[in-house]
Amino acid sequence: MKSKLRIVPIGGLGEIGKNMTVIEYEDEILIVDAGIMFPENDMLGIDLIIPDYNYIMDKLDKIKAILITHGHEDHVGALSHLMRIVEAPIYATRLTTGLIQGKLREAKILSETTLITIKAGDTIHIGSFTIEPFHVAHSIPDGVGYGITTPVGLIVHTGDYKFDHTPVDGWPPDFAKLAEFSSRNVLCLLADSTNADRPGWTQSESVITDAFDELFREAQGRIIVATFASLISRIQQVANAAVRYNRKLAITGRSMRNNTRIARELGYLDLSENMLIDINQASTLPANEVAILATGSQGEPTAALGRLATGRHARLKIEKGDTVVLSAHPIPGNEEMIYRIINRLLQRGAEVYHEGIANVHVSGHASREEMKLLINLVKPKFFVPVHGEIRHLQAHGKLARELGIPEERIAVVENGTILELDENTLTIGPRIPGGYIFVDGSGVGDIGPVVMRDRERLANSGFFITIVSLDERGQVIDKPEIISRGFVYLEEAEDILEGAVEIVTRTISASGHNQEKLHKKLEGALSRYLYTETGRRPMVYVIVK
Amino acid sequence: MKSKLRIVPIGGLGEIGKNMTVIEYEDEILIVDAGIMFPENDMLGIDLIIPDYNYIMDKLDKIKAILITHGHEDHVGALSHLMRIVEAPIYATRLTTGLIQGKLREAKILSETTLITIKAGDTIHIGSFTIEPFHVAHSIPDGVGYGITTPVGLIVHTGDYKFDHTPVDGWPPDFAKLAEFSSRNVLCLLADSTNADRPGWTQSESVITDAFDELFREAQGRIIVATFASLISRIQQVANAAVRYNRKLAITGRSMRNNTRIARELGYLDLSENMLIDINQASTLPANEVAILATGSQGEPTAALGRLATGRHARLKIEKGDTVVLSAHPIPGNEEMIYRIINRLLQRGAEVYHEGIANVHVSGHASREEMKLLINLVKPKFFVPVHGEIRHLQAHGKLARELGIPEERIAVVENGTILELDENTLTIGPRIPGGYIFVDGSGVGDIGPVVMRDRERLANSGFFITIVSLDERGQVIDKPEIISRGFVYLEEAEDILEGAVEIVTRTISASGHNQEKLHKKLEGALSRYLYTETGRRPMVYVIVK
Repeated sequence: MKSKLRIVPIGGLGEIGKNMTVIEYEDEILIVDAGIMFPENDMLGIDLIIPDYNYIMDKLDKIKAILITHGHEDHVGALSHLMRIVEAPIYATRLTTGLIQGKLREAKILSETTLITIKAGDTIHIGSFTIEPFHVAHSIPDGVGYGITTPVGLIVHTGDYKFDHTPVDGWPPDFAKLAEFSSRNVLCLLADSTNADRPGWTQSESVITDAFDELFREAQGRIIVATFASLISRIQQVANAAVRYNRKLAITGRSMRNNTRIARELGYLDLSENMLIDINQASTLPANEVAILATGSQGEPTAALGRLATGRHARLKIEKGDTVVLSAHPIPGNEEMIYRIINRLLQRGAEVYHEGIANVHVSGHASREEMKLLINLVKPKFFVPVHGEIRHLQAHGKLARELGIPEERIAVVENGTILELDENTLTIGPRIPGGYIFVDGSGVGDIGPVVMRDRERLANSGFFITIVSLDERGQVIDKPEIISRGFVYLEEAEDILEGAVEIVTRTISASGHNQEKLHKKLEGALSRYLYTETGRRPMVYVIVK
Repeated sequence: MKSKLRIVPIGGLGEIGKNMTVIEYEDEILIVDAGIMFPENDMLGIDLIIPDYNYIMDKLDKIKAILITHGHEDHVGALSHLMRIVEAPIYATRLTTGLIQGKLREAKILSETTLITIKAGDTIHIGSFTIEPFHVAHSIPDGVGYGITTPVGLIVHTGDYKFDHTPVDGWPPDFAKLAEFSSRNVLCLLADSTNADRPGWTQSESVITDAFDELFREAQGRIIVATFASLISRIQQVANAAVRYNRKLAITGRSMRNNTRIARELGYLDLSENMLIDINQASTLPANEVAILATGSQGEPTAALGRLATGRHARLKIEKGDTVVLSAHPIPGNEEMIYRIINRLLQRGAEVYHEGIANVHVSGHASREEMKLLINLVKPKFFVPVHGEIRHLQAHGKLARELGIPEERIAVVENGTILELDENTLTIGPRIPGGYIFVDGSGVGDIGPVVMRDRERLANSGFFITIVSLDERGQVIDKPEIISRGFVYLEEAEDILEGAVEIVTRTISASGHNQEKLHKKLEGALSRYLYTETGRRPMVYVIVK
């Protein structure tokens, strides 16, 4: 009996899941993408999240290749972690390779990693698999999806895509290849679900051109455009507008400088050297001759735009007459920070344009009509929605049913679910235990629910620690020492401190010679006292010496 | 020379500002509304924010009345604080009075407060002021704005409004009164700016009726509608749909039960007793005979919907076939929590409808075309946009200029700015120092930037406290004790703890007999060590006994 093909989305589906997919046949494994996730607001102190590699940990030697679809963080960001344990080569297109190199160099593992540059239209044989990258349009150039011919059939993975007929780089998606896959019978389609709740057709990147044209024509002062550092096509549009309206271009924000440099070197960004100025010159040239590209479109307080909004940018100050454009869509959870930055920019006298009030951003992902076209072009036997929260996956699954794919051939599953495929059946297997791996500082995975709960409690009410010294007879020596932070403003809370000392003294004398569990008794008494006084529940610890 | 009229928005304008306005002429003060603000995501541990009363603190005896526009928290929520220091009577309409009574009763200050029930159309004389409440449509019934005739002229304050021609309570806004004000020459209009960036005309509350009708017609199982507890008209619509489709109605969530009770008692909610069932019955009646109203539409994890999403609701479980409707608009900052709840409800098998994918919510605030109508109806000499973030105030100010009000007659100002008016001039005065007052537990205003910064640091990296006991010769007695939370998972961080102990021992022997500032030296050494090991910066304290 023939073996089954396994598809395991790892951090590639689910609540906030992006993005790694394991494709496994007998003792050969392909991995598609290795992205990070961004922490939510209540994941306190967490820098980023990487997928839980549990499923592949005892199969590392079976991994034959890592196929990358495009250069966004949620598709390549975990490579600097994954490549410490995996030895297989990475396959990616030229721009994507350039971006990955920078990342691996920073992580000091570039020299140990094999990076193979491919291009859309190639055919690559790896073990039992034949891999055909095909061009897709997305908000970064040189994106591909993959057709993967396996011993049980042809799998198509879209990566992130939109059906943009007029992309800024002039390279529309490869509809013919999708049709050709279809003619060979596609066993299973894995497709991007990000916008599965958006009706219609996502607007072309080109519509931004008109909006920028108007902004650049009207603006009397400097123009500052904030966008994602990886949105190379948007950067190209800003550069084009700057050329048309005789403005020089400065770039502020490390990641945007890096990405721009790589994209220019590799020929994915048409931006001549004499167009570029140093950010210092942005304050000395006449205001109507300056355009500035900045990071921070998601409201990050330490990125360039965030520093401009609070006046903490070292080399640039927002002035009355400046026009600021936020050319990005808020990732859910970032709205509040973005609006705060907008308010602060307005306070400083800037004009501010954003997606909510001007046509300055379009999504990089397909909307529902494009999703329908994809499914009808590819005509897969089985359908697995990927990329997106559960609400998007379910909406995408429903859409596939509306197009006539029977329910039993659609797998709407969460991260870590093992899917098994043969020519005729798709079986939804068990879900591998394991969840997110938090990265905080240099620690990877050393922070779990206990630490997170403690951080939440500390964030809400701080801590209150009392050190009591007793002599041999159990009498208090000196006054108890108290350390407290994040609970009350101590300088103005003398009465609370005195009350706490009194509680300690009283509890100790009440317990007499019975000093067993004295510190627990003290902690209980202090917690009750502090709650009565303030309605707050700080973490209370007592140390008896 | 005649005195000037002062208008001081206090917590009534600005970044997230709502909502209290001081109107002052010589030694008489009126206050319009006394609302709270909700904390943003990074205001850790804060329950709510009240306006800074600094401006009125030395003028308390001049306050003649508090005029309330409607019963929403951001207009009445601070009364339980304000009425502890102010003796003047509160004027409000009948439903609003009912809601305020509940609030003051809970704060145990109801008996000391004078509440005067007024109605739209009344004329009230208070000192030099003549006050004419006029009916407005909003997302809670019985809302009014105020025309206030002062010695320098007529001031119109809209409160929150929309121009809904077909409100659910059948009581459209009083256009005639606005026109009549206009015929008497309006000196200054203060108008709601919340939706100043939304083009067009806000849809009528009535459009929801169709959406609910379709949902109730199609749903096979139970229907759970989450909305604001104060959105009485929405509650009425759910009740109406339940009647039409033969479903009984259960209500879960304390604030919604309270508000529903008050609104029914006062006749603002048409909901017969035999329609209502206990939440326990929602699980025993046939699913298609049950509708449930729930709190938690903003993603609050401890409200009814949040508990349903995580399976922690004591008396109700979400089941496959349930239809959940989020009939509310996310307040910026809440999107992430709302989407998380949606995902979890989907995981439990519910169908979920929300504003993003179905017509189940409309705003309670006027959009730009209504704002234009208001200004052209009222024809004020001076214009002050109120309610909203700076971005909304600025947009509203621009809109007024487009309608022909000269720039010098428009005051777009932040919280605490003193505006002075006479018949011919509007002067923007200084801004009173002071900002938000944080309420945390029972503490009001005892938490400032120091505690907030500490909480942020604790949230990010926790704390690490070491207690070292030295004998008389400065030798370490026993092993140093370490208490740490929110930093690393201690059970698996033995090496770090051992390393820390070693650092302590080494630092102490290196400093020899020089024990001055020993704990500072130790704190520095430990901080450096912990950062090197983990890339994190917990709060580090050392106590030397």
